[in-house]
Amino acid sequence: MKIGLVTGTVVSTVKQDGLKGLKLLIVQEAGTDGKPLGKNFLVAADAVGAGLGDLVITTAGSSARLTEFTNERPVDAVIVGIVDFIELEGTYSYRKYSIPEK
Amino acid sequence: MKIGLVTGTVVSTVKQDGLKGLKLLIVQEAGTDGKPLGKNFLVAADAVGAGLGDLVITTAGSSARLTEFTNERPVDAVIVGIVDFIELEGTYSYRKYSIPEK
Amino acid sequence: MKIGLVTGTVVSTVKQDGLKGLKLLIVQEAGTDGKPLGKNFLVAADAVGAGLGDLVITTAGSSARLTEFTNERPVDAVIVGIVDFIELEGTYSYRKYSIPEK
Amino acid sequence: MKIGLVTGTVVSTVKQDGLKGLKLLIVQEAGTDGKPLGKNFLVAADAVGAGLGDLVITTAGSSARLTEFTNERPVDAVIVGIVDFIELEGTYSYRKYSIPEK
Amino acid sequence: MKIGLVTGTVVSTVKQDGLKGLKLLIVQEAGTDGKPLGKNFLVAADAVGAGLGDLVITTAGSSARLTEFTNERPVDAVIVGIVDFIELEGTYSYRKYSIPEK
Repeated sequence: MKIGLVTGTVVSTVKQDGLKGLKLLIVQEAGTDGKPLGKNFLVAADAVGAGLGDLVITTAGSSARLTEFTNERPVDAVIVGIVDFIELEGTYSYRKYSIPEK
Repeated sequence: MKIGLVTGTVVSTVKQDGLKGLKLLIVQEAGTDGKPLGKNFLVAADAVGAGLGDLVITTAGSSARLTEFTNERPVDAVIVGIVDFIELEGTYSYRKYSIPEK
Repeated sequence: MKIGLVTGTVVSTVKQDGLKGLKLLIVQEAGTDGKPLGKNFLVAADAVGAGLGDLVITTAGSSARLTEFTNERPVDAVIVGIVDFIELEGTYSYRKYSIPEK
Repeated sequence: MKIGLVTGTVVSTVKQDGLKGLKLLIVQEAGTDGKPLGKNFLVAADAVGAGLGDLVITTAGSSARLTEFTNERPVDAVIVGIVDFIELEGTYSYRKYSIPEK
Repeated sequence: MKIGLVTGTVVSTVKQDGLKGLKLLIVQEAGTDGKPLGKNFLVAADAVGAGLGDLVITTAGSSARLTEFTNERPVDAVIVGIVDFIELEGTYSYRKYSIPEK
C-alpha cells in the first residue's frame, strides 16, 4: 500500500457503468511525515469516506477491487484507510490530531 | 487510476483476435491541470467513446478487463471516464467546458 | 498497452515447461514516432508473428495470458499487434509502409 | 519480491473491514547490504511477526493475498519473510546476527 | 519478462509457509549484453535450477505463480529460463558459452 494526501476530486459524467456511484479522489503521493512527495498523484475510489486533507492508505491493482464499493468494478486504486498516525522508531512522524498540552 | 490526455490513435491490422473491434488510443499522462506531464504515454482501449483532446481516466492491470468492451481480452489499459472537471482545494484545476460569464 | 520496437530474440534451453514453444522477443520501448525511447526493453512472447524491426503493441501483467499462445503460461508480457500507423492530431507520427507519391 | 527495512508502523481507525486485525508496517526499500535505498517506502501487512529494524522480504500485487492473514483482503503488499542473511558471490552482504569470533 | 543476472541468495528462517522449499535468488536487472544495469535487483523464486552468474528470464506478477514450484504461493517473481544467447539484429549481444575458434 502507499501513503497519500487527498487533495481533490475528479468528476466525470461520461463513464463506464462500473464507475457509477463511486467517489473519485485525487491522491498525491506522500511521505511518512504526511507531506506530498513531488507531483505524483493517482485517482482512487473512496471506500472509507475520506475528505480533503486526509492522509490515507491506498491499495492498487487487483486488490483494489476487494472492498464492497469496488467489487468487480474497473478500478485499480482504492482508499482503504485514513491514517491516524505514523510512528517511526518511537516518535510520531505524522499525527492526524495534535494532542492538547496540559 | 490515472489522468491522461487523448492525443492520437493506433491502427493495427495484424493483431490478436482479442483486440478486434477495439479502438486503441494514445493517452499521454497528464497533470491535474489537464496538461501533459513529460512524454509518458500508453495505449488504452476506449470504453467510453473518448476523442482527441479529451482528458480521461484510465484504469490499468487486470481491472482494465472489467468493462463490457474489454472483458476477457488481452488489454492492460482502458479509458473508463471522460473528465468534466478536477477540483483541488475548492478551485477548478481543470474544466472541460468553460462557464460563460454574464 | 505499450508501443515497442522488436530488436532481437532470446533463446533459452533450460526453461519452465510453460515457456515451451513460445518465441521470446526483445522489445525496446518506443515513442509515437516508432523510435526507441532510451534503453528500456522487455522480453515478450510473440502472439502475432512479429519480426525484427516491427513496431508492436505489448500487453503486460495478467492480461498477457489472454491469448491462445500464452493461456495459463508463466509470461507477463505478450505482443498483441503489429502497428500499421500512429496518428497524432491528424498527422502520421509513424507509418509502417510509406505511401508512394504520384 | 523486494528487500526492505521495517522502520515504522501506521495506525488507522477509519478503515475498510478487510484491513481489520492486520498490522501495517512502513517498509523502506533496501539494498543487498540491508541499508535503505533512497526514500522509497511502502506500507505492507505483516504475515511473519516482523519488528522494527528487521530486514524483510515483501511480496506485492495479487500474490500479496496468498497468506492466511491477507487472503481475500484489499492489500497489495505483505511481508513474507525475515532475512537471516544475503550472500553475494560467496560473501555475506547482510547478516542479521553477527557471528562471535573465537 | 525481464533479463537479469543471478548474483546472490537470500536465506530466511522466519517466513510464510508458502515460501517453504523455495530457493530465493538475488537477480540484478541486466541489459541485452548480460551486464548489470545500475543497482536495481529483485528477489525471485527459482523454477529452473539457476545458479550464480546465470543470465535469466524472470516473470513478475500473478504470472509468477504459474509454475509447479510457485503455484498458489505468495511470490511475485520467478525465474522461468536460463538464457543461452540473445541476438540483436543478426549478431549475438550475449552468449552463455563461447564458441571455440578453429
